[in-house]
Amino acid sequence: MARKILRINMTDLSATYEDIPEKWAKWGGRGLTSAIIFDEVEPTCHPLGPNNKLVIAPGWVSGTPAAPSSGRTSFGAKSPLTGTIKESNSGGLSSQKIGKLGIAAIILEGQPKDGKWYSIFIDKDGVKFEDASDLLGKGMEEVDKVMWERYPHKPAVIGIGPVGERKLTNAGISVNDPENNPGRYAGRGGLGAVMGARGVKAIVVDDKGGPGVHIANPELFKQGRRKLTKAIQAHDLTKKNGGLNAYGTDVLMNIINEAGGLPTRNFSSGQFEGAAKISGEMIAEMVEKRKAGQTGHACHPGCIIQCSNVYPGPDGQIIASPVEYETAMALGSNCGIDDLDFVAQMTKYCNDLGMDTIEAGNTIAVAMEGGLLEFGDKEGALALFEEIAKGTPLGRILGQGVEATAKAFGLYRVPTVKGQSMPAYEPRAIKGIGVTYATSTMGADHTSGYTIAPEIAGVGGKVDPMSIEGKAELSLTFQAATAFIDSTGYCLFIAFPILDIPEGWEGMAESVAGVMGMDITGADVVPMGKEILRMERLFNERAGFTKEDDRLPEFMRTEPLPPHNTVWDVPDEVLDEVYAWVHE
Amino acid sequence: MARKILRINMTDLSATYEDIPEKWAKWGGRGLTSAIIFDEVEPTCHPLGPNNKLVIAPGWVSGTPAAPSSGRTSFGAKSPLTGTIKESNSGGLSSQKIGKLGIAAIILEGQPKDGKWYSIFIDKDGVKFEDASDLLGKGMEEVDKVMWERYPHKPAVIGIGPVGERKLTNAGISVNDPENNPGRYAGRGGLGAVMGARGVKAIVVDDKGGPGVHIANPELFKQGRRKLTKAIQAHDLTKKNGGLNAYGTDVLMNIINEAGGLPTRNFSSGQFEGAAKISGEMIAEMVEKRKAGQTGHACHPGCIIQCSNVYPGPDGQIIASPVEYETAMALGSNCGIDDLDFVAQMTKYCNDLGMDTIEAGNTIAVAMEGGLLEFGDKEGALALFEEIAKGTPLGRILGQGVEATAKAFGLYRVPTVKGQSMPAYEPRAIKGIGVTYATSTMGADHTSGYTIAPEIAGVGGKVDPMSIEGKAELSLTFQAATAFIDSTGYCLFIAFPILDIPEGWEGMAESVAGVMGMDITGADVVPMGKEILRMERLFNERAGFTKEDDRLPEFMRTEPLPPHNTVWDVPDEVLDEVYAWVHE
Repeated sequence: MARKILRINMTDLSATYEDIPEKWAKWGGRGLTSAIIFDEVEPTCHPLGPNNKLVIAPGWVSGTPAAPSSGRTSFGAKSPLTGTIKESNSGGLSSQKIGKLGIAAIILEGQPKDGKWYSIFIDKDGVKFEDASDLLGKGMEEVDKVMWERYPHKPAVIGIGPVGERKLTNAGISVNDPENNPGRYAGRGGLGAVMGARGVKAIVVDDKGGPGVHIANPELFKQGRRKLTKAIQAHDLTKKNGGLNAYGTDVLMNIINEAGGLPTRNFSSGQFEGAAKISGEMIAEMVEKRKAGQTGHACHPGCIIQCSNVYPGPDGQIIASPVEYETAMALGSNCGIDDLDFVAQMTKYCNDLGMDTIEAGNTIAVAMEGGLLEFGDKEGALALFEEIAKGTPLGRILGQGVEATAKAFGLYRVPTVKGQSMPAYEPRAIKGIGVTYATSTMGADHTSGYTIAPEIAGVGGKVDPMSIEGKAELSLTFQAATAFIDSTGYCLFIAFPILDIPEGWEGMAESVAGVMGMDITGADVVPMGKEILRMERLFNERAGFTKEDDRLPEFMRTEPLPPHNTVWDVPDEVLDEVYAWVHE
Repeated sequence: MARKILRINMTDLSATYEDIPEKWAKWGGRGLTSAIIFDEVEPTCHPLGPNNKLVIAPGWVSGTPAAPSSGRTSFGAKSPLTGTIKESNSGGLSSQKIGKLGIAAIILEGQPKDGKWYSIFIDKDGVKFEDASDLLGKGMEEVDKVMWERYPHKPAVIGIGPVGERKLTNAGISVNDPENNPGRYAGRGGLGAVMGARGVKAIVVDDKGGPGVHIANPELFKQGRRKLTKAIQAHDLTKKNGGLNAYGTDVLMNIINEAGGLPTRNFSSGQFEGAAKISGEMIAEMVEKRKAGQTGHACHPGCIIQCSNVYPGPDGQIIASPVEYETAMALGSNCGIDDLDFVAQMTKYCNDLGMDTIEAGNTIAVAMEGGLLEFGDKEGALALFEEIAKGTPLGRILGQGVEATAKAFGLYRVPTVKGQSMPAYEPRAIKGIGVTYATSTMGADHTSGYTIAPEIAGVGGKVDPMSIEGKAELSLTFQAATAFIDSTGYCLFIAFPILDIPEGWEGMAESVAGVMGMDITGADVVPMGKEILRMERLFNERAGFTKEDDRLPEFMRTEPLPPHNTVWDVPDEVLDEVYAWVHE
């Protein structure tokens, strides 16, 4: 009944089920991927070399019955984009299926000696390696389709597109959604290149007949699950027809634009005149008007928030799923483009090629700044994506993301931290998220400490976004709580209700305690999150990272951002406070 | 009479002559560039941004009468290639002319607001800024020619080619030689991109009527100069018709190949079957046979070693000057190419485009490993250089050097340290130079601590290249002595005679003491060198570098190098010893 580690070695094509060692036994999801990377990967290793590993772990509660919105899969490795440890998680089908097979984590290691490519099929009977040469060069749409044709039981498909095959640093890992679309992504940090460097095109997971997730204390689990469900269903942001369900994450577009924090034209303004046209409200309007597509879409079975969408074109045909706020920023406002159909079209392209939409869109914005095309040039942007698809030299530059593109064109204004480009919140206008970008264990990443909740949404309290006051502590608390939530398998969006509704917070902890048989309560969330952060931070230090890496780009310190005309003014000492406790 | 600092600000196009501050007064050459960068450049600044500076300093004795081989100019900045502090020095006309104008250093700072490009003319009457739009896109051959037509007195021309204009990280800075060829380069570290980011295409220096170098103690200077001259003229490697004079630096080709330390086919072997065909002996044979070109060529007036050459083609027309050992390795053995005419042709291309030949050749080798062309493919290599010339996307990848090219093609075997590619000595076969590559303050650089002298040439003692014993101390001593020599203006090749002939060592110190009026002797060389290294190391630490950056690439630790079949086995602890004294 105890969870197993499935170790897949690509050098000798072996697969072994190992007992989970004591030191990892308490972890799931991100806690487990980070613990394994921390223990088994040399921090200075080359991310694409033989000594990096890709670890795939469902959360603690993933695969349990009726744990709400608990289908997140954590992917961990040393990132080729940032050089740091990385955990990137995704919705889709994989988490629950891996969990139900009794697998705590899949460790993918080694490299085929012959340079061959494989797909890997995992079910209750074990692991099969199959020649993937017929899939090479294929986009994820086709790969998902082929796998559902090839295998019964609608398996989870974890795969990489051509960008991952080329081992470029903006390669993400795709997970299929319940309709077998490749739109769920562990997008950030180039983990698709790590998978590609193991010679693996796809991992197919069929849980049929699996043992299911062992629940140590069913009563406690059920009690926690119920409290959490109730909180989700009660909160304005997550309830049925609430903000996220009605409009998706892109409900933020008008809100962040209003706050002056919407990255626009390569981070040169905090407001975009076309924001309303690429907002969540507009997505809902299009779905209604075009009588096609869907809002309130679930990215994995059992999600009760259902913030995803399926976006229809003018002809009523589906273009892509999902159109997220981050994507609408990166491919929209940050490129000076106010066209949702275009954003959806580019999203489809990213999903098929296997790229993170944030990095991909911001890369186009940098190319615009570099003079390759004008801001707002949709056809030009599409042509650049075609270069990526073809794998031309320009496509190889762009397929690496913002930092590499800026270097190739000799640019100075590079909105990245630790090589990863910034998400959809301007740190000059919203200071807390800037502290998270700067200090996160994985580069500029909003999901690693989403202080937007109190700074903009008034969730978990209300703090002034422009104030520096208390932001180090705020960011750390969010980073720690996030590390815990990323370990549960629950979607990070449960943070909204549980920050405001104490029973929800307690319920989350109880549900985990119930599954794992651990003696933990809500009071353990932040301390356990800090344990995870400590491993991650130490890994990074051993890889050579210092406080000098915990900084925002120089241009943000001198260039005032309209409309508030503020610069990044959080002192370095404040940033250095955030992780001071690691060595205390 | 006291030396001045010439500060040129490109933002407001101002030039001011400043008294040299006390803290910098004792330094020249590299000591001065590093002191200024250390004091004035924020270590975390973006190398291409408004806050980096390019500092140009002649050595202590440059421009004095009859100091032998003393025409080296130091160029310093934060490097866009490595992110470290950088000093790269060059022969050619500039050092003596700047020195004779009474200028200790030129500090080039700021950026033109309008994005315009300028050339700068400096003579005894001051500084003139001129529109350089007519020179944009031109190679250095034409720029040098235009400047000698435009200005009388055969001025020094310091300039950048198209690669520097594009601010790519393999952009070097060219200095014209006495025949006005653009073959003398401050090649390494991408300093041409720093000059390009200041909007400066060329700096022209005319010393006519300048005050000359003030010599505080002419008798001591003369005494030192004489001792040093005598040593140079006595040593087998540097005397008339000695190794360097007869065959140039490429005399090393057969020697290093014999030792099994010649980088071959992207650092996959230490011996190249075609080594003899690209050796210094072959250069001399071609000059003799083709009755054209020259060995024993001087790269600057007053050089008595004269190790440069002018290489002729089969038709007796000059192809390029000079063909150096490092170049013959990078564009020859490391690309699997055994054709000197080809190496010369590519050298000409590098000199004209404004690229470091080491990085450029090694980049082609990496492209070969990445499958863009076969090892040995001369036409393919030439076609890649044409991409660089045209500034195509592929050319922009290649123009950045080895590290960027490896990333664009998803490669693991990347022979760099701190982003800079390795010169012509395989660290797996010659351990001391590997310690220098790993720990040098500026990335993989043979000239920063040339342990090859005792490890291979038997100069300054004789040590076993394959032994680890004492290599940390050996490398440090060489690094420190080099930092001093790089400050004198003397060519580093004086190291050979002065390591073996104590009077030469003393003479070097006395000549410096005589010019500067400083109370120093030969015993001060290493301690003063360490003062320079300390500034450089501290700069790097403040930029975020740690001991984890002082490592050779992972593949060298596991992949045995033929013919000795040895791996890089110097323990990290040995590497960490080298700079332990900085914080003691």
